[in-house]
Amino acid sequence: RIDGARLWRSLAGMARIGATERGGVCRLALTDLDRQSRDLFVDWARAAGCDIRVDRIGNVFARRAGRDDRLAPVLTGSHGDTQPTGGRFDGIYGVLGGLEVLRTLDDHGIRTDRPLEVALWTNEEGSRFAPAMIGSAVFTGASTLDYGLSRQDADGLSLGDELARIGYAGDEAPGHPLHAAFELHIEQGPILEAAGRTIGVVTGAQGQRWYEITFTGVDSHAGTTPMEVRRDALVGLAELVLFVNRLGHAGAPQARATVGRVEVGPNSRNVIPGHAWLTVEFRHPDEAILEEMDAALRAEVARIAAAAGLQSRLEAIFHYAPVPFDPACVAAVRTAATELGYSRQDIVSGAGHDACHLARSVPTAMIFVPCIDGLSHNEAEDITPAWAEAGANVLLRVMLAAASV
Amino acid sequence: RIDGARLWRSLAGMARIGATERGGVCRLALTDLDRQSRDLFVDWARAAGCDIRVDRIGNVFARRAGRDDRLAPVLTGSHGDTQPTGGRFDGIYGVLGGLEVLRTLDDHGIRTDRPLEVALWTNEEGSRFAPAMIGSAVFTGASTLDYGLSRQDADGLSLGDELARIGYAGDEAPGHPLHAAFELHIEQGPILEAAGRTIGVVTGAQGQRWYEITFTGVDSHAGTTPMEVRRDALVGLAELVLFVNRLGHAGAPQARATVGRVEVGPNSRNVIPGHAWLTVEFRHPDEAILEEMDAALRAEVARIAAAAGLQSRLEAIFHYAPVPFDPACVAAVRTAATELGYSRQDIVSGAGHDACHLARSVPTAMIFVPCIDGLSHNEAEDITPAWAEAGANVLLRVMLAAASV
Ligand SMILES: NC(=O)NCCC(=O)O
Ligand SMILES: NC(=O)NCCC(=O)O
Repeated sequence: RIDGARLWRSLAGMARIGATERGGVCRLALTDLDRQSRDLFVDWARAAGCDIRVDRIGNVFARRAGRDDRLAPVLTGSHGDTQPTGGRFDGIYGVLGGLEVLRTLDDHGIRTDRPLEVALWTNEEGSRFAPAMIGSAVFTGASTLDYGLSRQDADGLSLGDELARIGYAGDEAPGHPLHAAFELHIEQGPILEAAGRTIGVVTGAQGQRWYEITFTGVDSHAGTTPMEVRRDALVGLAELVLFVNRLGHAGAPQARATVGRVEVGPNSRNVIPGHAWLTVEFRHPDEAILEEMDAALRAEVARIAAAAGLQSRLEAIFHYAPVPFDPACVAAVRTAATELGYSRQDIVSGAGHDACHLARSVPTAMIFVPCIDGLSHNEAEDITPAWAEAGANVLLRVMLAAASV
Repeated sequence: RIDGARLWRSLAGMARIGATERGGVCRLALTDLDRQSRDLFVDWARAAGCDIRVDRIGNVFARRAGRDDRLAPVLTGSHGDTQPTGGRFDGIYGVLGGLEVLRTLDDHGIRTDRPLEVALWTNEEGSRFAPAMIGSAVFTGASTLDYGLSRQDADGLSLGDELARIGYAGDEAPGHPLHAAFELHIEQGPILEAAGRTIGVVTGAQGQRWYEITFTGVDSHAGTTPMEVRRDALVGLAELVLFVNRLGHAGAPQARATVGRVEVGPNSRNVIPGHAWLTVEFRHPDEAILEEMDAALRAEVARIAAAAGLQSRLEAIFHYAPVPFDPACVAAVRTAATELGYSRQDIVSGAGHDACHLARSVPTAMIFVPCIDGLSHNEAEDITPAWAEAGANVLLRVMLAAASV
């Protein structure tokens, strides 16, 4: 069994890096704060006897030797970056939970057959650089290295330059062989807590589609331009926000449809906006329904533009199909939870995770623990020490089993 | 008659300061570029024999002595700041048109009975610091000096500190006596051009009300949070944008209703926005109708918030009633245009101007010239040299008449 108090102290120590006034964390990918949290993880992993390797997209791997180091390792881990108003557990709980597994093995002098690795993946959140999960996408070949390095933030800084700036542009080619992978994460939704279950046995993740849409009208004077001749791009944006929201409601309870980010220009009080840009994302466990939502969005963007005298542009920037996890790995999580006496239930992940990329090429599963009020991507995100401990205990057990030959 | 070629050269020279790639000007109030344009105006005015005075809110007055300097001066002028995607004429045409009047008098060795003044008013646009027309508001006592100096931009910098930083925090108490005031400006709308008239005799300006509205919901994860439990502040914003637009259309052709600026938080693609902030402005020549629009807005904000589970806050940040200009000054503009042989028509200003504040305490009128396609607050804003010259000729004539005792 892992040391719950030690894990909780590590989480608290890490949460100081980027701590916000309201108890959350703002540690955007590849900022100085991200560097600090990577440095701290590396220090802790070295202290636990690990070798550190960094690949060209900045993924960090802390490796604990096995009895036979020619065998492919069993990997765990998650990400260290957060949303702008993020919480203390999203991502980092899976990294430090993995580290706690290694520390526990050290405490008991246990050496596994296969090596174990704890990964810290680059830019999982997709907030500073879109899309999400770039580090694991490049690792598995879902995206090319060039694509990953060329992603830009809102200020036009590239992921590759920022990686070099913080000293985490490694020299390993991304994508070494893995035997199996398990990711420990908070659920980020309300299901487990509402059902009163401690462990979510994650059977897969829903599909996602991300878009960027631009409406272009004409900047003009808010006081002198009659309503009839305006070409107001913000009015187009507002219509689309409401359409996306209606589309999500029409597909309830399974569909998700969100506009998370908007930019309006010139964004001056007494100027009719000639420019409006927004992001749309759709999620659903059924690819056919995502296909329908895609078609509906394209039709509506065209309709709004034509009706309001605007030009429009729609770009599909990211897309992945629903992901099933490996049945044997999922069964291992289920068994471990039962053996440890934790209440559990199967669950489909609403969020994307690095494990979703890994699952395309490596036997993979995930372990969820509940979070309070289902809140995540929110500074108030919280979990109990008992949940944190339970999830890491399940992780310990499945990794031990997978690492023996 | 003024020298149209010289006026046009001055306009072109000034338009280099803050010139944009698309032929417009971005010279936000109290930036380094605003300082440069103020310095250039001061140099030119000194070369024309003027004394320069700067008051505590940063208004600059170039004064040409009269035969009797104890008499209150006749003032003209406008502003030097622009919108972020502004044009080459909005504001600065009235400043340089005034300077051209003084230069023409010098050419002909004419000394007026009363002194003449050309003003450059601080922060007319209201884009960097809200509200609009702060310099003239403080000058006339419509706002206090403390209020003006404490206005903040989006980065939290105060107008007072920025004024000091660029060296334009003068020591004159704002508000010296004036005999009469005339402001020369482009129409910024489509009316004169459509009617084929060169001179707009401005009889007054419509009333304005500016608001700031905040919706607060809950930041949460776009992938895991079911549609039914979301509290999406951006959806509230979108509903209000469409409501404001409908309200404007319902009051056509006279009403104007605009959302020009929005801020959304955390503004991340995969986070349901818990924060949304927007500006609303209404304009109408009839105060009673502005009163109705105000009530409708307040009711709709409350309705949206209640229906969507959001909190809301509405702040009325700026308000002025429709302004009638002085009948004698208006008649003087009409007469001058007729005597000079220019086509003309009476017009109500859709935009606010520094003259609107002056009109509350000083006999005031305005002279409009057309602008191409009615475009303003747009980088493509344009006028013809002939219109520029005609407007300044009318200004010369009305100032000469007003300055003689
Ligand atoms: N786990 C998580 O929040 N990942 C970010 C990508 C997503 O929005 O699903
Ligand atoms: N003239 C002008 O554009 N003034 C700015 C204030 C307004 O929006 O009316």
